[in-house]
Amino acid sequence: MASCNKEPCKEETSPQEKCCYVSNPHLATLKEDILYHFDLGTRTHDLPAMFGDIKFVCVGGSSWRMKSFALYMNELLGLGHEAADIRNICAQTDRYCMYKVGPVLSISHGMGIPSISIMLHELIKLLYYAKCSDVVAFRIGTSGGIGVQPGAVVVTRNSVDASFHPHFEQNVLGTIKAYPTALSESLAQEILQCSKEINRFDTILGNTLCTLDFYEGQARLDGAFCHYSAEDKMKYLHSAYEAGVRNIEMESAAFAAICNRSDLPGAVVCVALLDRLQDDQINSSHEVLMEYQERPQIVVGRYIKKKICNH
Amino acid sequence: MASCNKEPCKEETSPQEKCCYVSNPHLATLKEDILYHFDLGTRTHDLPAMFGDIKFVCVGGSSWRMKSFALYMNELLGLGHEAADIRNICAQTDRYCMYKVGPVLSISHGMGIPSISIMLHELIKLLYYAKCSDVVAFRIGTSGGIGVQPGAVVVTRNSVDASFHPHFEQNVLGTIKAYPTALSESLAQEILQCSKEINRFDTILGNTLCTLDFYEGQARLDGAFCHYSAEDKMKYLHSAYEAGVRNIEMESAAFAAICNRSDLPGAVVCVALLDRLQDDQINSSHEVLMEYQERPQIVVGRYIKKKICNH
Repeated sequence: MASCNKEPCKEETSPQEKCCYVSNPHLATLKEDILYHFDLGTRTHDLPAMFGDIKFVCVGGSSWRMKSFALYMNELLGLGHEAADIRNICAQTDRYCMYKVGPVLSISHGMGIPSISIMLHELIKLLYYAKCSDVVAFRIGTSGGIGVQPGAVVVTRNSVDASFHPHFEQNVLGTIKAYPTALSESLAQEILQCSKEINRFDTILGNTLCTLDFYEGQARLDGAFCHYSAEDKMKYLHSAYEAGVRNIEMESAAFAAICNRSDLPGAVVCVALLDRLQDDQINSSHEVLMEYQERPQIVVGRYIKKKICNH
Repeated sequence: MASCNKEPCKEETSPQEKCCYVSNPHLATLKEDILYHFDLGTRTHDLPAMFGDIKFVCVGGSSWRMKSFALYMNELLGLGHEAADIRNICAQTDRYCMYKVGPVLSISHGMGIPSISIMLHELIKLLYYAKCSDVVAFRIGTSGGIGVQPGAVVVTRNSVDASFHPHFEQNVLGTIKAYPTALSESLAQEILQCSKEINRFDTILGNTLCTLDFYEGQARLDGAFCHYSAEDKMKYLHSAYEAGVRNIEMESAAFAAICNRSDLPGAVVCVALLDRLQDDQINSSHEVLMEYQERPQIVVGRYIKKKICNH
């Protein structure tokens, strides 16, 4: 496994400004940095004024869900914004949606590692230019469970690849680099504690299998193509279970790798929409699925509220 | 390079129904197939009635662009639909947008291989269940050029990976499978001919580098992380050019592999928003970028109109 190749960040002038996050000497040479997929820029926007107070970044695949999370946090934290005033900051592009309520930034990332990876590169630069400090990041998402009841929430210990290794491989200039994908154990334990206090649904700690494909990549039998048997599928899913995997999704590896590379504490909190040892198709009712999707929001919301109240 | 493992499709009852596309014996055992990310299903929707007349499928990353393409084709083909009646068929989900105008289906796929891959699996099943035949598929998108002028349109000969090999590798049950990513030469030539007839902008044939990352994966110097020099970057981009690469994007490999696996003729037609031998940042004006993005639509639109008129 290759090293992170992480270069030390320059010390900031003020000890209060612990911001750093980026690790790219070339950025200092840019006269202007356009965060293209957010439609934001260092010359066109006052990023410290817009984002300098951010302490919690929550990301998830669906733009609708990330808007509903912003509305939910507005209520939970008693911020008192009118719903109509909580506007999509990236409304000039259809790539991602972004909402800010108090110290909470809620951003959608689409589906899959490449889509979240573009967003995270620009988010990390945003935190840097905005001089944010002491930020904690969460991915709140949906997943397929392995040996867990539908509706259970899984907090990721390690994001693992298709061979169940806890690293994220990336091809850079034709060479493979591997970055570790273990997530903060202490943050994960705090999230588990929040779920215990809520006491409304099961939340467990487990490894998360991160794949590049939803059908064949997740051993489904119902894709357009499938050339393995039901027995092959079950053998693979059981070997995942034995490797500590409790759910499967498509973004945690990039999220964990980038959190580690930027020294940003991060947690992945995903609800299982089904148990893949029983089913391939997601066939619960719309209402049940909507309620499931609120669960990671409720757990992470409680964590954020506790942190703010104890501050 | 592994084989495609493609199993022969069953013959349809009618010789007119040349539909097949899928290659999965398990589908025959499903009582219902839910195309989850489209919010469509075989039991809830009459897919042959809704989609049976589709002859052209056009896909692209941006939902706004794919709506504008549907409106453009409505005008170009003189279909006479009111704009307000051209509705998003997948409006109950925020994963993808889908519009149908006459025989043209326009679908967004988000960013990156995993996102387009989910969409294409469900699209291929949709074509199969709807009993479509003689369909041609296009990806119309944006890209970074290599040694081409901004605004030039590149029609893909081979989609190549980070080592410039014309295949798409996929991990299935822990084993790597590789699928060829050469696209139809005759279709590409027809597209080039359409562009010559329009005679408004340069269109060339070239290989397309398909990456999993926009920043380090495309040798940019302006990501959150970068641990190579400007010289390393230029060396990589020049070696891509020498391998016949004329543009870089993030979806063509999955598109080409799935077209090949399903015997669906396909073309990738992307405009270059910048020349990566000159720049990393996309800093043309909004108006210029909007005009560039119309170019693949105009070329593919002409192809479709010619095919319909000569039918």
